[in-house]
Amino acid sequence: MKIIVDAFGGDNAPLEVLKGCERAVSELDVNIVLTGHEKKIKSCAKKNEISLDGIEIVHTPEVFDIHEEPKEIMKSGKNTSMAVGLKLLADGKGDAFVSAGSTGALVMGATFIVKRLKGIKRVAPSPVLPADKGSFVLTDAGANTECRPEMLVQFAVMGSAYMEKVMGVKNPKVALLNIGAEETKGRELETEAYKLLEKSGLNFIGNIEARDMPKGECHVVVTDGFTGNIALKLYEGMGSLFGKKMKWIYSGIGKVGAMFSIGKIKKFRKQMDYKEVGGSALLGVKKPVIKAHGNSDSIAFFNAIRQAKKCVETDISGVIEKYAEKTAEISKELNRIGQN
Amino acid sequence: MKIIVDAFGGDNAPLEVLKGCERAVSELDVNIVLTGHEKKIKSCAKKNEISLDGIEIVHTPEVFDIHEEPKEIMKSGKNTSMAVGLKLLADGKGDAFVSAGSTGALVMGATFIVKRLKGIKRVAPSPVLPADKGSFVLTDAGANTECRPEMLVQFAVMGSAYMEKVMGVKNPKVALLNIGAEETKGRELETEAYKLLEKSGLNFIGNIEARDMPKGECHVVVTDGFTGNIALKLYEGMGSLFGKKMKWIYSGIGKVGAMFSIGKIKKFRKQMDYKEVGGSALLGVKKPVIKAHGNSDSIAFFNAIRQAKKCVETDISGVIEKYAEKTAEISKELNRIGQN
Repeated sequence: MKIIVDAFGGDNAPLEVLKGCERAVSELDVNIVLTGHEKKIKSCAKKNEISLDGIEIVHTPEVFDIHEEPKEIMKSGKNTSMAVGLKLLADGKGDAFVSAGSTGALVMGATFIVKRLKGIKRVAPSPVLPADKGSFVLTDAGANTECRPEMLVQFAVMGSAYMEKVMGVKNPKVALLNIGAEETKGRELETEAYKLLEKSGLNFIGNIEARDMPKGECHVVVTDGFTGNIALKLYEGMGSLFGKKMKWIYSGIGKVGAMFSIGKIKKFRKQMDYKEVGGSALLGVKKPVIKAHGNSDSIAFFNAIRQAKKCVETDISGVIEKYAEKTAEISKELNRIGQN
Repeated sequence: MKIIVDAFGGDNAPLEVLKGCERAVSELDVNIVLTGHEKKIKSCAKKNEISLDGIEIVHTPEVFDIHEEPKEIMKSGKNTSMAVGLKLLADGKGDAFVSAGSTGALVMGATFIVKRLKGIKRVAPSPVLPADKGSFVLTDAGANTECRPEMLVQFAVMGSAYMEKVMGVKNPKVALLNIGAEETKGRELETEAYKLLEKSGLNFIGNIEARDMPKGECHVVVTDGFTGNIALKLYEGMGSLFGKKMKWIYSGIGKVGAMFSIGKIKKFRKQMDYKEVGGSALLGVKKPVIKAHGNSDSIAFFNAIRQAKKCVETDISGVIEKYAEKTAEISKELNRIGQN
């Protein structure tokens, strides 16, 4: 299996990318295709004694600027490490693509270079977030700020397939992010999506309020990309704040106290660490595309590559296409019954 | 000063309400008008040895059911402790109203019984949330799920007035909750509101991403009621999860370890405790209405009453009306210039 990796995406590129790739080659039985400036990659590898065995480099002179308009990935950015990686994936030169670059550009490129699956209206970045009990996928976490109800149903279908196949959750529980438990709550988007989700054939358990998200009582949290992005970033922000505060509590004499709970502290940290999960799958694309966190380190890159491998092995794209077809059939059938 | 308090709002009514009122009378130099079932109040006070000195009871036979449709506060719910309290406030029988009952009903009742301030389009529940540095008001936190840009500007005006007058922050920094820092980010609501906020005369510092909210780098976070409610509840939910995890870390042998950091742990807990702030002010109403948290204890009720008192003392309603007038004038002026 060949995983294409953008060597110049994220804050810690290319060093941490290279380290992650080296480990992936040695532990995951994959080959890597790295896109990026060849000389820079080789010099970084040499300087840091990173082996490039099993790693092929495709030279690209440029890097996609994080502040650039996403649509430029198709135009002025077409020679960047991200755009070239996506093109290689589309051309069958690899099985999946991992990048820690601009989410917007990656979504745009995945949509127009790798292309959407048949019947899928929008690509949705879908990170798996840690919770008190297990974890859940949040979809859409930022791409589609304005959604129609049927798009939310597709996100639910894709998230459900992902949790089942890639994360190994049987019959994943799907919930709609909303401001109350009752089905009449929320905007028209939510009340309409609620009705469609009830008929979708998914394991839909109703609305979930944001305060219950961290408990982990469902496996798929569905929402539009604006709300999803707010939720995702607040999740991260609260996590950072508490991480910072725990460090402060355990500083000075607190260090001694921490020793009494060191096992629990480590366990909790590991449980809440996004790096453990890998990245955010861009669901709805013909081939797996993984967005790694912007400040990924080598562990996060390694896990993102592992995640990409799992997506290939489980043929998540094919599964989503079938799920989407089935849901479309159910919808048609319901419409037919409704009209008679 | 007379603060009207709904004796039967919230999960811990009437006991915790009564305790909070008793303390408020003794420490805050206020009188209390309690609305609710007189016999039940008196028997609860007697049983728990709570003094009713300085507390007047206005008997109301019913309690507004939290699951009832909010609009029923005007109809079938008009004899409830909440509706009667709002009516007393509207009639000048008290200076402010505190209730831990249904937010929806309280917003509806505040809007149609106490009535909105001149020029204010919507009432916005606006809780003050704890942050790493200080605190900030989130407005709207749940009432208006669909907003127009000019409504967000009014929320900003009201939040700014509140932070300045009631919370004592000089020239409060106002930010728009959005999915990116650039002014082109977000939905049409955000891009249009951004332009208006820039011209508002407020201390507008631009967009804030959700991950930066807990840092406390601004004093007013403006958003629509749907997004605000998601953010508020996730804030609470993450807080609960971390609270639970800290308890777990400090259980068993961890108790010994906790002793080394006990001062810091207590300080952090207090900093993050919503009970310390009081409740959520319903901004835009002619007279102060405070929504206390549904599971408020006596400390939270005491603080909500203190907050109500501060709202009266600073004439926050009058100030908001003047601010709103001024902003409307600026808008008109800008329109005039734009048209010439």
